[in-house]
Amino acid sequence: MSEEALVLRQDKDGIARLTLNRPAARNALSRPMIAALQAEFDRIAADPSIGVVILAGNGPAFCAGHDLKEMRSADYGASYAEDLFEACARLMQRIVSLPQPVIARVHGIATAAGAQLVASADLAIATDDARFATPGVNIGLFCSTPMVALSRNVSHKHALQMLLTGDLIDAPTALRFGLINEHVSGEQLDVAVEALAVKIASKSRHTLAVGKAAYYRQAELPLDEAYAYAKGVMVHNLQARDAREGIDAFIDKRHPTWCHG
Amino acid sequence: MSEEALVLRQDKDGIARLTLNRPAARNALSRPMIAALQAEFDRIAADPSIGVVILAGNGPAFCAGHDLKEMRSADYGASYAEDLFEACARLMQRIVSLPQPVIARVHGIATAAGAQLVASADLAIATDDARFATPGVNIGLFCSTPMVALSRNVSHKHALQMLLTGDLIDAPTALRFGLINEHVSGEQLDVAVEALAVKIASKSRHTLAVGKAAYYRQAELPLDEAYAYAKGVMVHNLQARDAREGIDAFIDKRHPTWCHG
Amino acid sequence: MSEEALVLRQDKDGIARLTLNRPAARNALSRPMIAALQAEFDRIAADPSIGVVILAGNGPAFCAGHDLKEMRSADYGASYAEDLFEACARLMQRIVSLPQPVIARVHGIATAAGAQLVASADLAIATDDARFATPGVNIGLFCSTPMVALSRNVSHKHALQMLLTGDLIDAPTALRFGLINEHVSGEQLDVAVEALAVKIASKSRHTLAVGKAAYYRQAELPLDEAYAYAKGVMVHNLQARDAREGIDAFIDKRHPTWCHG
Repeated sequence: MSEEALVLRQDKDGIARLTLNRPAARNALSRPMIAALQAEFDRIAADPSIGVVILAGNGPAFCAGHDLKEMRSADYGASYAEDLFEACARLMQRIVSLPQPVIARVHGIATAAGAQLVASADLAIATDDARFATPGVNIGLFCSTPMVALSRNVSHKHALQMLLTGDLIDAPTALRFGLINEHVSGEQLDVAVEALAVKIASKSRHTLAVGKAAYYRQAELPLDEAYAYAKGVMVHNLQARDAREGIDAFIDKRHPTWCHG
Repeated sequence: MSEEALVLRQDKDGIARLTLNRPAARNALSRPMIAALQAEFDRIAADPSIGVVILAGNGPAFCAGHDLKEMRSADYGASYAEDLFEACARLMQRIVSLPQPVIARVHGIATAAGAQLVASADLAIATDDARFATPGVNIGLFCSTPMVALSRNVSHKHALQMLLTGDLIDAPTALRFGLINEHVSGEQLDVAVEALAVKIASKSRHTLAVGKAAYYRQAELPLDEAYAYAKGVMVHNLQARDAREGIDAFIDKRHPTWCHG
Repeated sequence: MSEEALVLRQDKDGIARLTLNRPAARNALSRPMIAALQAEFDRIAADPSIGVVILAGNGPAFCAGHDLKEMRSADYGASYAEDLFEACARLMQRIVSLPQPVIARVHGIATAAGAQLVASADLAIATDDARFATPGVNIGLFCSTPMVALSRNVSHKHALQMLLTGDLIDAPTALRFGLINEHVSGEQLDVAVEALAVKIASKSRHTLAVGKAAYYRQAELPLDEAYAYAKGVMVHNLQARDAREGIDAFIDKRHPTWCHG
């Protein structure tokens, strides 16, 4: 099976849709799957025609996490593990550092590194019956990398409930925890995700890229440093052509025309 | 128009009420408005008669953010922008560093730097029909300084939903996100805000000042440093006259009489 | 009264139940009570037979915080205060650093350092009528050490509402804030807490210890450092016998047999 077949990509009107394509394995993140996803995100990062990314999964599940059979085949070897978790952590950080916003489109289950994909995405919409878990504790392998993303999205008590019990939570609970933005019926999932993607794709790509990068950077700084940094971002952003165009258009009550710069 | 007229101040029983007073401009934070607010907060910081501050807006909106016409008049110049965003960031940090708690009284809309005022306040009560947004992305100017305050109040997915879509959220959503403490009917807004202000104004001002400063400082420290710091604050606080008076009064089942020291 | 009597310990099937036992004083954390708790947690930390800890209180309240009469008896002395708050901060960090997960079983009230115990526990289940407060501001002594734990569990606006007003919040509000995981009827409290404890006690103790320690450590790191650290934890965890056994058992569709190593 070629690398490309593991992840499908479909572009339309500035929206790239990436679909995990190992349905029989519930889209488990085997080492080749991680490589295929990384390659697609790297291509998108350098593609000025793309304004937003949808991350979806084929088959009954969004993503069931790592590929346990692959782990056993590698005899749980240290060098295999080092390469695997390094690649996985790089992938998750690639989503965060991607210039374009990423929307997770979640159905079925999103567990372990699958829940981490949801947590790493900027936004997430799930079906009403989607379920989420970090069940590593049940197999003796604590979800230590998934929790990096999880704990940056939900509070301590909520994260630890998931991590220490390994239990599945339902979509309303994931909404309450802040892991997803919305849940809708299965029939409405694509409508809701595409409406959100179209809305974001209508913005200036330059502005989105500036804003997303600044968001994650300032979030890790103390308040005074965050303001000193964000102030500089604002000053720089205001000199961009799209800001002048956007403000002029707003005052003149017309639609802006972005040059995405 | 004099600087004072941009912000009205009314003091009563230890409560200072500051009212943004550019109703026709939906209280947009022009450079003079920022200066007027900064001046009032600086005066309050040094005023031992004030125990709590209410921040409100005249007219149909709490605050619509920066003054876009002023930005265009300045031709989006770098030195203008540098001065503007520096002054705005200083103002927002002044609210956080103010010895007295600040309650945002929100009606209509609170958008961009207006939403930032709400996020920067210690507490916020809004009307049931109040709405909130960080819509800079719609005009090509990402809300990069507002998001410093926003992201310290709400979780990543919630903040990014507001920042990447620019959409208005309603008061129940703002409550769910943690951006406000409560929403009430328009008729009940002043009753609710004043009841909260009166309650806080009844506490020892010394204790409030010690606690508010310690709160924001410890929040930025690792757990062990936070405890080492907060422990010192407690030891020092216990030596204050108001702590001895407060504990004595509690044990003796009488009302304490604060010296605010 | 002996130190042991202040805290009761009952072990059963890998679950240690610690019960605060000063019911007439609503389990106030006197200096001897803190010492007794610290001693029990230290013993549990070194006890490989224990997989999870339940922290409960005898009498009408979970815990009413510090012992104000003791503070007055010590004439609010600086050296007494230094020792008291140092010991209290050490105890709270002992809960966080304990290898075993800690579940707070909350009924009645949990106030000041009592609310801090709830916030410091990994998980918390309360009765429907339990109430929580950080009321130090009412007695001139701001809850500066409790807020270290509180602010790491709930958002700024929620924490400051509790800290600046001193008001009691009810269990549904505590659930909404994220201070507790669940609230149930008084009759169901022990059933719910024990079911949770039994579930966690069924996991590999090695995995729980690795995961809990990693959780709190990574939470304080920037994203890239958190991933670099957590990746190493995963690689190391995968080499443990319980991970191989857990994954083998999962693939082979049988129950794992932990060696807890």
